[in-house]
Amino acid sequence: MDMRLVIGVNFARLRKEKGLTQEQAAERSGFSQAYIGWLERGRRNPTAISIWMLAQAVDAMPADLVQPIET
Amino acid sequence: MDMRLVIGVNFARLRKEKGLTQEQAAERSGFSQAYIGWLERGRRNPTAISIWMLAQAVDAMPADLVQPIET
Repeated sequence: MDMRLVIGVNFARLRKEKGLTQEQAAERSGFSQAYIGWLERGRRNPTAISIWMLAQAVDAMPADLVQPIET
Repeated sequence: MDMRLVIGVNFARLRKEKGLTQEQAAERSGFSQAYIGWLERGRRNPTAISIWMLAQAVDAMPADLVQPIET
């Protein structure tokens, strides 16, 4: 399981469920829009603290971001 | 919520439930025993990929490591 992709796919899904654009998610999380784009494509390996900040931005829990995805 | 402490406390609990020493957990995870010790005291901020490796070492899922703890 590629955890980078798992987190990216989960984050993108949760962001869209909240009706947020990548730009809005960036503002809420404190990360750049570019970072959010890379993250959602599985190109970032966020730390525990970053996972927490990302989860907060989409009103989710860290566990929601690391749930297995269908591949 | 300090995610470093959350992961450390959860990891220590899961490790003990499996009956593993820190040394055994180190061997299984590929991290050093010192790293495991620091991690369990909330002194490390592991990346998504490291969280996956740590979870594997105690036969758990990444979500188990980021579950909220009682503080």
